[in-house]
Amino acid sequence: MALEITARRRTPITGASARSGLAFGPILSVTGILLLLLAAAMLVPMLADLAVGHPDWQVFAASAAFTAFFATALVLANRGANFEALTTRQIFLLTTLVWTTVSVFSAVPLALSGLGLSLADAVFEAVSGITTTGSTVMTGLDRAPPGVLLWRAILQWLGGIGIIVTGVAILPVLSVGGMQLFRSESSDRSEKVLPRSAQIASAIGGLYVALTFACLLTYWYLGMDMFDAAVHAMTTVATGGYSSHDASIGYFANPAIEWAAIVFMAAGGVPFVLYLQALRGRPQALLADVQVRWYLFVLLGSSLLLAAWLVRELGKPYLDALRSAAFTATSIMTGTGYASTDYGQWGTFPIILLFFLKCVGGCTGSTTGGIKIFRFVVLYQVARSQMNRLVQPNGVFRMTYNGRAIAEETAISVMAFFFLFALTFTAVAGALAALGLDYLTAMSASVTALANVGPGLGPIIGPAGHFGDLPEAAKWVLSAAMLLGRLELFTVLVLFTPLFWRG
Amino acid sequence: MALEITARRRTPITGASARSGLAFGPILSVTGILLLLLAAAMLVPMLADLAVGHPDWQVFAASAAFTAFFATALVLANRGANFEALTTRQIFLLTTLVWTTVSVFSAVPLALSGLGLSLADAVFEAVSGITTTGSTVMTGLDRAPPGVLLWRAILQWLGGIGIIVTGVAILPVLSVGGMQLFRSESSDRSEKVLPRSAQIASAIGGLYVALTFACLLTYWYLGMDMFDAAVHAMTTVATGGYSSHDASIGYFANPAIEWAAIVFMAAGGVPFVLYLQALRGRPQALLADVQVRWYLFVLLGSSLLLAAWLVRELGKPYLDALRSAAFTATSIMTGTGYASTDYGQWGTFPIILLFFLKCVGGCTGSTTGGIKIFRFVVLYQVARSQMNRLVQPNGVFRMTYNGRAIAEETAISVMAFFFLFALTFTAVAGALAALGLDYLTAMSASVTALANVGPGLGPIIGPAGHFGDLPEAAKWVLSAAMLLGRLELFTVLVLFTPLFWRG
Repeated sequence: MALEITARRRTPITGASARSGLAFGPILSVTGILLLLLAAAMLVPMLADLAVGHPDWQVFAASAAFTAFFATALVLANRGANFEALTTRQIFLLTTLVWTTVSVFSAVPLALSGLGLSLADAVFEAVSGITTTGSTVMTGLDRAPPGVLLWRAILQWLGGIGIIVTGVAILPVLSVGGMQLFRSESSDRSEKVLPRSAQIASAIGGLYVALTFACLLTYWYLGMDMFDAAVHAMTTVATGGYSSHDASIGYFANPAIEWAAIVFMAAGGVPFVLYLQALRGRPQALLADVQVRWYLFVLLGSSLLLAAWLVRELGKPYLDALRSAAFTATSIMTGTGYASTDYGQWGTFPIILLFFLKCVGGCTGSTTGGIKIFRFVVLYQVARSQMNRLVQPNGVFRMTYNGRAIAEETAISVMAFFFLFALTFTAVAGALAALGLDYLTAMSASVTALANVGPGLGPIIGPAGHFGDLPEAAKWVLSAAMLLGRLELFTVLVLFTPLFWRG
Repeated sequence: MALEITARRRTPITGASARSGLAFGPILSVTGILLLLLAAAMLVPMLADLAVGHPDWQVFAASAAFTAFFATALVLANRGANFEALTTRQIFLLTTLVWTTVSVFSAVPLALSGLGLSLADAVFEAVSGITTTGSTVMTGLDRAPPGVLLWRAILQWLGGIGIIVTGVAILPVLSVGGMQLFRSESSDRSEKVLPRSAQIASAIGGLYVALTFACLLTYWYLGMDMFDAAVHAMTTVATGGYSSHDASIGYFANPAIEWAAIVFMAAGGVPFVLYLQALRGRPQALLADVQVRWYLFVLLGSSLLLAAWLVRELGKPYLDALRSAAFTATSIMTGTGYASTDYGQWGTFPIILLFFLKCVGGCTGSTTGGIKIFRFVVLYQVARSQMNRLVQPNGVFRMTYNGRAIAEETAISVMAFFFLFALTFTAVAGALAALGLDYLTAMSASVTALANVGPGLGPIIGPAGHFGDLPEAAKWVLSAAMLLGRLELFTVLVLFTPLFWRG
């Protein structure tokens, strides 16, 4: 049972040896730089509150100052740190530290604002924002000051581009859960992970801004006021799901807006690098990608199944059924979490289908959560080659992804992720149940947090409810689960292995 | 995405080439022989009904004659078939065919008896018996004729030894879901799978009979009448769970009987070959086995967790809590399914824990169902080596099972099983939901059938309910699920691949 370790160090993959001590300098410095950006972002809601004369502008000003002070101290104290040669361990620590720290500082204005949120509430809301989950502890959104509403949307929007960059530039280098499938020639080594991240962020960032503007203009054209359009555009493209109304998109009661949301949510679930390739003259790249194909197939298939159920069982008119079904399926599968109606009332079959879609999630390299489509592609290939191998034990059955062979090691990596997801889901659900949550609430809260979806199921945390009434301890558990899910489990859990900290 | 096949046939594993046509002779012949045994077994309940003068003895006589006639025809029509050189494909087909056919013929007396069971009911009850699941569609067991009660118990008892032999002699040869881990030197080739099966059946069969008698005498000594003791001994050792009373073991209201049941159920979940080794002078073989260790650890750990919950949340006295907890955990984890109390009322945390135990199951090579402990051992090893590899990409981390290295291929096989189990669970639950079952009923029915446990959760199919009121279609779905689960999914599903039937 013991794991034997043979350190075979023919080709050290990192500039500094992975065996050397863990230098914190560059890690803290990068954290500081990102916190400076966060502080700058806090000025936007400050201006919004100033514009309408709401006193919360002081909260945002103070939070920005506090964050900027802390961030500057981090940057100054770690001047001269070497960003070019990070070890794998440094990158692991950096990734988890950045997402955790940014979450905590994002919670500051929420905790200090006049909303009466507890510390657990504020952290939950911030983590749910940054991870683009979209579960909320707040009610009375329709009467909330613009600053807070804008801040929640900005958190999701920043978290969205954050996870795209993490997924494209960092996780493939770390080989987390089969992400090595997405290593490019140039990204094979961890040496220049930060410069490359910045490069990718700026290339994809432009696209991300453009898509957000397109969404904003569409919403505005279809009847939202400019503020609602801005908030919803940010949380649509980031597939986050925070709304400025308790009734979510249902508030507008506007079929055209729902269709627009379907299109932009679905667009947010596609790998953003493919958009770049399409814009650079290879539009066929989009539909030739196996992940995109499966994604659209599952999205379309489950929308049609749901629509058929709504027509047959609930007697809805065809077009209404199709719109509600497509909206809900897209919102759940991309992990956005908007609600146009209380789908908790649709019956058992839709509940199980939506539960499944939550787990599946969208494409990697997008803003969506969950297990991700590419893992199901790999799992399907494995299952299929297993079946064939059973029939012909001596046959050689190659597994391929986008035409390239899948290494056995990568397959194992993907399957280990699947197993860990199932195990973590059970553990979180068990912990929530032990804290007194009922069966449906505990199960759906666990999956919605891990897959970064948003609403759960049942009367308490379902699309018509919110997370505010859960016990404080449950909010902490769920905050941790959202971060775990967002960073693909391994990135965080690896920090808890003895080997990681051994010098 | 296409799977490319390179037929590399350096060492043909089977006597006849796997590429040749599928010869049905030996398959049908073996099926006939086993049906003859089944017909002989029907004489036992016939005698029981005769003894008390119940007219159902004619049903059993007629069923035995019918089965024997059909079986003899099969055997005679396939005289001279060669049993020594079965191909892998033949063994797959044989395994599925035998379990299906035996189930169907076992249902005949149930369908013809005066119990008013529909065809779906009778098949469900027979499949649930043969697969040692123990879900029942029957109520009024306390007033049922002895023949039917005995027949249900005999089905589970035969199914129990059947799955041990299948698990020890057949599945390792087929390499189903990582079962290649249990290949011995002598079983590496499929050539003599049937003679070896017979050998193992007789070696383990003696032990199985002895364990059953020990259980019978214990129950009898503790106060059961001889009939009840016989019925419960057979369904305890087979971890089947059929009872002769609607209230299951709870009927006897006897703590000593419950403790005895705990011990014998737990004993039924241990690999029977280890008992053989222990009897042959290597008693340390039992506790040195990694699967047994994990099994006892999980059993003990969850019993204590449950007991703590019962004391803290429900205020039960310590000893009562411990007994109820150990009984329920053992009954669920081994897939027996006896109930001593309605644990559906214990709250959410126990429900989630029991749900998890259902999925885990006992040791392979025993009568239990579920994913099986050894797969979790392998999955743990994979997850651990993955974590370590993330930290030290160039380190070599060996995965071991009982001190021997786990091949990557075996790991993939195990993980593919896990994935397929999760997928099948979702599909069955979805199908049941589409048939109108509520959330908890659909989910728990799906897992209880696939893991061959017995009762589900909720008011309808929970420990206080039964499966009789489900829609007929749901009973068919669940019958298929029980067989799928019993034969470890792949054995059945492989028959549905195009490659299997290609000449």
